[in-house]
Amino acid sequence: MALIKKPVTGMKDIMPEEMEIRDYAISVIKKTYAEFGFQSIETPCVESIQNLTSKQGGDNEKLIFKILKRGEKLRLETAETEADLVDGGLRYDLTVPLVRYYSNHANDLPAPFKAIQMGNVWRADRPQRGRYRQFMQCDIDIIGEPTNLAEIELILATTTTLGRLGFKGFEIRINERRLLKAMAAYSGFPAERFDEVFIILDKMDKIGMEGAAEELVKSGFSQESTDTYIDLFKGLETAPDQLAYLEEKLAGVIEEDVIPGLREVIESVDRTRSADFRMVFDPTIVRGMSYYTGTIFEISMPQLGISCGGGGRYDKMVGRFTGRDVPACGFSIGFERIILILMEQGFKIPGSPRKAAYLIEKNMPADRLCQVLEQARDEREAGARILIARMAKNKKFQKQQLHDRGYEEIVEFYRNPIDR
Amino acid sequence: MALIKKPVTGMKDIMPEEMEIRDYAISVIKKTYAEFGFQSIETPCVESIQNLTSKQGGDNEKLIFKILKRGEKLRLETAETEADLVDGGLRYDLTVPLVRYYSNHANDLPAPFKAIQMGNVWRADRPQRGRYRQFMQCDIDIIGEPTNLAEIELILATTTTLGRLGFKGFEIRINERRLLKAMAAYSGFPAERFDEVFIILDKMDKIGMEGAAEELVKSGFSQESTDTYIDLFKGLETAPDQLAYLEEKLAGVIEEDVIPGLREVIESVDRTRSADFRMVFDPTIVRGMSYYTGTIFEISMPQLGISCGGGGRYDKMVGRFTGRDVPACGFSIGFERIILILMEQGFKIPGSPRKAAYLIEKNMPADRLCQVLEQARDEREAGARILIARMAKNKKFQKQQLHDRGYEEIVEFYRNPIDR
Repeated sequence: MALIKKPVTGMKDIMPEEMEIRDYAISVIKKTYAEFGFQSIETPCVESIQNLTSKQGGDNEKLIFKILKRGEKLRLETAETEADLVDGGLRYDLTVPLVRYYSNHANDLPAPFKAIQMGNVWRADRPQRGRYRQFMQCDIDIIGEPTNLAEIELILATTTTLGRLGFKGFEIRINERRLLKAMAAYSGFPAERFDEVFIILDKMDKIGMEGAAEELVKSGFSQESTDTYIDLFKGLETAPDQLAYLEEKLAGVIEEDVIPGLREVIESVDRTRSADFRMVFDPTIVRGMSYYTGTIFEISMPQLGISCGGGGRYDKMVGRFTGRDVPACGFSIGFERIILILMEQGFKIPGSPRKAAYLIEKNMPADRLCQVLEQARDEREAGARILIARMAKNKKFQKQQLHDRGYEEIVEFYRNPIDR
Repeated sequence: MALIKKPVTGMKDIMPEEMEIRDYAISVIKKTYAEFGFQSIETPCVESIQNLTSKQGGDNEKLIFKILKRGEKLRLETAETEADLVDGGLRYDLTVPLVRYYSNHANDLPAPFKAIQMGNVWRADRPQRGRYRQFMQCDIDIIGEPTNLAEIELILATTTTLGRLGFKGFEIRINERRLLKAMAAYSGFPAERFDEVFIILDKMDKIGMEGAAEELVKSGFSQESTDTYIDLFKGLETAPDQLAYLEEKLAGVIEEDVIPGLREVIESVDRTRSADFRMVFDPTIVRGMSYYTGTIFEISMPQLGISCGGGGRYDKMVGRFTGRDVPACGFSIGFERIILILMEQGFKIPGSPRKAAYLIEKNMPADRLCQVLEQARDEREAGARILIARMAKNKKFQKQQLHDRGYEEIVEFYRNPIDR
């Protein structure tokens, strides 16, 4: 049987030109996060199927690549359901593995623990342009820090990294799950249906306030609650200070630390940032994952109309593993989107080393070849990139190709130095 | 159901101390290989099950983590064998994926193509100390180069990298599959049983020549062939020039370019290397994978008595995908072993940046916090690693811990600068 040349459905081979940019971006990200005190960790790509299907992952749990049991554990004859056949799966995010890792190793880790993870995740999504079933995630998380310092450092670290990769004029949009809930409670929506309200709110940037109002009523929410809710957002549009407006409106409904906390994060980041971006309070940001308990944020690139990452606080997940809650907050860069933007912008890696190609004549005697190898060794020791290749029959074409690949210097070596 | 804290059987969580060394080693490896003109590529971790079970992978094919079909394609009721249930698997090496990649993209790749891959592979081996079911491989390959230049550059690049990681006094042991076959043919072993001979030869370093002779006879090979074979190895022991000895003995049996080729590789590498190691011709090296067609080599660390990688020429594998053979040669560093050795030797990363910890008092007012964040920003911009943490109740213990983690400078910040 002939072998299959294509990668499996929905996954991609990465070409050298893209890999060079990816490797560069990874090095900038890791260096910057290290300067903020984050430490690299890694977990296996495979997690036990119980952890992956524990309702931490929302819809992603429907998209798991599951791994067949092996050896005696696989009992095909008696298997009745899928669950009888599998014992593991490929992780769909880095947050569930991180929390498992933290729960397993907390005694050996500093407190608070600041982690950076860069790794592939897998989701068996319907294949579509620009989205792949294997993609890299790049997360930083702080576990064990209850104060705003976590949010502030996560946002500063992420934005500094983006700035160093050449991004500017972007926005960090921030909201609070507890504020979302207070606004819904203030409007009189029933608490057990808040998530439905938020799913509609999440679409407000596309369907507008009227569209959202229509959909709320159509979903069976009362006209009165809907009106109160929409009026809150209308008031926000014209309020000179949105947070002050909400503080007044929601007095008695919202926990007292929520709005001062948001204000402190926004102001502290704004005053101490190093990159060129704006902090924006956005009461319509929802973030899908149900595990968020406090602040939530997104990176928005307004010129491109897309989000390039996000995160938030999830103070209740460690407790799912250990029985004892530990505060946690994380921020994920949309690595694949960042790379796509850099590629489309024709990003050039700064400070690339000298590249030279040595073309050697065929059947070069060993002595002469050694001379060439020695010269290459000395140049490489000095940090240059030296490609040694045999001269092709069509040397002109070969040189053009090397030039196109960035070899600005091409040196020809002949069997006998004077032959040239 | 409580969640599981441990990683899945046979796989491991990587702690920050190890990750720092891994990240450093990866950067040295990628930088050095780039200087030799190798380009990074990446393939998906999942390959189609057909490619993984195509007899390219030898025994590794028995160790595949297989991935369940999804959605409508999974027909549990009618499935009779494992093969009906799966459509993919986790790769067990990087060579099969590389050759698939090359076959898929050859038109867009330079010729010859020099690739570096660093990525995880998975084998469902019986768990044992120091060996894991997920581990990183680090391969360089040259596809499309028929001459020795491929072997020479692969060995020089790999040894230069090892040298830069601080290894010295190691050996590159080299042999040739065609020489192995010629020695077996010369001894009169039947060609269809050569692989059995080589499996016994492979153990000669452990069981000795007498042990190997015994096992050959016990396996049904003739006493005469066995004696001739063992005599060859005995002759090698005392020969002043092993290659000249074999050239004379095997004249007429061996292809003419084999021994001069080996000699050229050994001599060229010896004369132009930058690291401290020895090239050693070793006629007992076999290498398990059946796809090798020419030179084969191993990295040997004699002080430790272990092999830390290997490779060889496999000129027939591309043809399995495309129908047309293309010469290929590769060298793989045993990344996990290298890291293990560095960890055990207490490896210190050279040129690490300054590390300082800022301890801030609790409930610091926003203005004062911003001063601290600004100071951190400026230090981070200058490349220092600044950890900001809240002062713990037991400050002495906290400072000791930070000191142990390499923070030699600890700065305390109070609510009011003069409070100190």
